[in-house]
Amino acid sequence: MTRLLRTQGVTAPAGFRATGIAAGIKASGALDLALVFNEGPDHAAAGVFTRNKVKAAPVLWSQQVLTAGRLRAVVLNSGGANACTGPGGFQDTHATAEAVAAALSDWGTETGAIEVAVCSTGLIGDRLPMEKVLAGVKEIVHEMAGGLTGGEEAARAIMTTDTVPKQAALHHQDKWTVGGMAKGAGMLAPSLATMLSVITTDAVADVAALQRALEHAASRTFDRLDIDGSCSTNDTVLLLASGASEITPSQDDLDDAVLQVCDDLCIQLQADAEGVTKRIVIEVTGAATEDDALTAARVVARDSLVKTALFGSDPNWGRVLAAVGMAPVDLDPERITVSFNGFPVCVDGAGAPGARQVDLSGDDITVTVALGVGSASAEVRTTDLSHAYVEENSAYSS
Amino acid sequence: MTRLLRTQGVTAPAGFRATGIAAGIKASGALDLALVFNEGPDHAAAGVFTRNKVKAAPVLWSQQVLTAGRLRAVVLNSGGANACTGPGGFQDTHATAEAVAAALSDWGTETGAIEVAVCSTGLIGDRLPMEKVLAGVKEIVHEMAGGLTGGEEAARAIMTTDTVPKQAALHHQDKWTVGGMAKGAGMLAPSLATMLSVITTDAVADVAALQRALEHAASRTFDRLDIDGSCSTNDTVLLLASGASEITPSQDDLDDAVLQVCDDLCIQLQADAEGVTKRIVIEVTGAATEDDALTAARVVARDSLVKTALFGSDPNWGRVLAAVGMAPVDLDPERITVSFNGFPVCVDGAGAPGARQVDLSGDDITVTVALGVGSASAEVRTTDLSHAYVEENSAYSS
Repeated sequence: MTRLLRTQGVTAPAGFRATGIAAGIKASGALDLALVFNEGPDHAAAGVFTRNKVKAAPVLWSQQVLTAGRLRAVVLNSGGANACTGPGGFQDTHATAEAVAAALSDWGTETGAIEVAVCSTGLIGDRLPMEKVLAGVKEIVHEMAGGLTGGEEAARAIMTTDTVPKQAALHHQDKWTVGGMAKGAGMLAPSLATMLSVITTDAVADVAALQRALEHAASRTFDRLDIDGSCSTNDTVLLLASGASEITPSQDDLDDAVLQVCDDLCIQLQADAEGVTKRIVIEVTGAATEDDALTAARVVARDSLVKTALFGSDPNWGRVLAAVGMAPVDLDPERITVSFNGFPVCVDGAGAPGARQVDLSGDDITVTVALGVGSASAEVRTTDLSHAYVEENSAYSS
Repeated sequence: MTRLLRTQGVTAPAGFRATGIAAGIKASGALDLALVFNEGPDHAAAGVFTRNKVKAAPVLWSQQVLTAGRLRAVVLNSGGANACTGPGGFQDTHATAEAVAAALSDWGTETGAIEVAVCSTGLIGDRLPMEKVLAGVKEIVHEMAGGLTGGEEAARAIMTTDTVPKQAALHHQDKWTVGGMAKGAGMLAPSLATMLSVITTDAVADVAALQRALEHAASRTFDRLDIDGSCSTNDTVLLLASGASEITPSQDDLDDAVLQVCDDLCIQLQADAEGVTKRIVIEVTGAATEDDALTAARVVARDSLVKTALFGSDPNWGRVLAAVGMAPVDLDPERITVSFNGFPVCVDGAGAPGARQVDLSGDDITVTVALGVGSASAEVRTTDLSHAYVEENSAYSS
C-alpha cells in the first residue's frame, strides 16, 4: 500500500544521506548548514528555479550545474541569501561547491564542483561569512547519516522564519520512495516562493523523466501557493534520483508520487506561513480556460482587502467581487456566484440572503468564485493578512 | 498670480453651488449626501471611471449620462456603494437621478434625470435605504449654497474612512478657477481608487477640452496613487465647467490647472490613507519607456514585503530588488541602483556601504530605483503596510 508520512524526508529513499549542523552563519547558533548526498548508483537530477529576473548567486550556479543533469550533492545554508552580492557573491557560491566536492573526495567519493548544487536563504544583500561556511562544509561531510535523523536535521537547518521543519515521504507500494523537505514562510509567491525544497527518490529515472515529474508537480503545487504575491530571488526545487531501489516506475506513477510529496509540503508551508491565522483556498470554477481560472484565483488571493477581511472573519464578499473584476479574464459580472465554505453569499453578482451572517471564525476558509462562463477551474492556496504578518515583516533585517 | 488653496473646493469657481447633509444613510448620523450644482451658463462635463469589470450601478448610470457631455448636477452619497446590487440597485440610482431632476425643476431650474450624475461609496453589496435617499434629495436642493461653506460640507458628506475632507482650488491669474473635492482612503489603486472626485471650473471649455484635461490629469495623478493595489467598483472623477468666468483658457493652461488640483487632492488622499504611517514615493528612473517606469514603480509600490519593511523604518533594500525583478520590464539586475531618500543603498545590483544604517524614521520616504537601461521615469505614490491598515480593514463590514 502506498503511504505518505510527514515524519520522514530526504533520507527516506534508499541511497541518500543528509544532515544539518550549526556552522555559525546564524548569530543565534541555530542549525544553518545542510547537506543532501546522493550515494547512487544513479545521479540524475532536475530542478526548477525562481522566475525573478534578480537571481541570487546560488540560483545562477545551480542552474548552470543542472544543465549536466547530474548531481552528487546539494549544500544549503540559511542565515543569508547571497543575493545581490555582486561577482564576489558568485565566487562565494563557487567556492562553497568546490569545498563540498573536495570534502566528499577526501571522504572517499570522487566529486567535482560541477556535481554540487548550492541553495541559500535569508536576508538579501549581505555576503556570507565564508570562513564559517567553508569550515562547516568540511565538518558536515563527516556528520552525514543515512537514517531518518539526518533528513530531519537537514530540514531544520534550512529554516528561516519557519517555526517547524517540513518533510514528507511517499512509500510506493511497488517498493520505491520519494522523500522531500522544504522551507519557506513568507515571500511565497507566483513562481515558487522564498522556498527551497529538495526532493529525493530511489526510483530509477532519467533526467527527462525527473524534469517532467518536477515541472508537473511544481506547476500544480508550489506555483499555486501565494502568501503575499512576492517572489524570491532564491527559489529552488531540486529532484535527485539515486536509482537504489532498482525499480523504474511509469512516468505517471513518478509524476503522481512527486506531486503528492510536493502537495503535502505546500500544505505544510501554507500552515506555517508568516503571520497565518487562516488557511485559505481560493477556488475559481466555471472559467473559460484553466489559465483564466488560475489568473482569477491568484488576483483574489493577492488582494489585501480580501485578506484583511478574512483575518477579521468578515464575510465581506463585495471585496471578492471587486478583486475578481480586475482579473484580466473572461467574465460577466452578472453571472458571478461567490461562496464562503460552500455557503453562497453572492448569486449572479448580487448579495444572497444571510450573506453577512456566514460564520468564518474557523481556521480554514474556502472561497469559491463561480464565473459561469465555462467549465475550467483552478485553486490557489493563500493565507490571511494579519497583524502578525505585519509584525514579522516590519522587523526582519533590523 | 496663480494660487492653490486647500481651504476651498468645488464652490470656488463661479457658477457652482453645493452642500452636504445628513440624510440618515449612515447609521452614525454623519453627513452622507452631497450635491454639486452647475448654475451655468455652460453645462459641459467630462468623466473618467473605474476600469474594474464589476461596476457599481451609479458608475453604469453616470457613464451613460456622460455620453451627452452635459451635466447640471452631481449627487453623491456615502454609506453604501450600491455595487453588486442587481437590477434593483440600478433602478435605485435611476430613481435618485429622477428625484434630483424633479427637485431642481421644482426649485426653478428645469432639469432632466439625464443631466444628473450619481456617485456612491461605502460597503459593496447592500441596497441603499431609498426612502432616506429620496427624502434627502428633496431637502438638499434647498440647502445648496454658493459660498465656500457649501463646498466644504459636500466634501465632508462623501467621506467614508477618510478622517479629513479633501479640497483644493486653483485661482488662475487670468481670472478663472478650478476647484475640486475628493474622498478615498483605502482600495486606492490602479485605475483611480475607491475614490470619488468632483472637479469644477468656471472656465469656458467644450466637452473635448474637458475630457482631454481630465484624462491628462487623472493618468498622472489618481492613476499613480496606489495604496493597496485594490481597485474599487465605484471610482469616478467628474469635471464640470460652468463658463461663468467667460474666460477661455488655452488647452495647456486648462490641462495644467486641472492637473495641479488633481495632484494636490492625491497628496491629501495619500496622507489620509487607511493606516498610513509613512508617505512613500516610488520613483523609477533610467527605464526604457515611461510605461516600463510606471509598471516597475507600481510593482514595487504594491509589494507587501517592501511596504511592511518601510512601516518598520527598515532599509531592507533587498526587498526592493526582489520586487522590481518581477516587473515585466526591460532591466539588467547588475545595473540597478536603489536609493532611500537620496542615499544609495544598492549600486549596480549589490549593497552599498552604510546601507543598513540609513535612517528611515521620518514620515516621508522616497525610494528611487534607477534601472540604468534608458532615460524614462515615473513616480507612484503609496503608503506603508501597517498594523492600523490591517485593523481598519479587518473590521469594515462587521
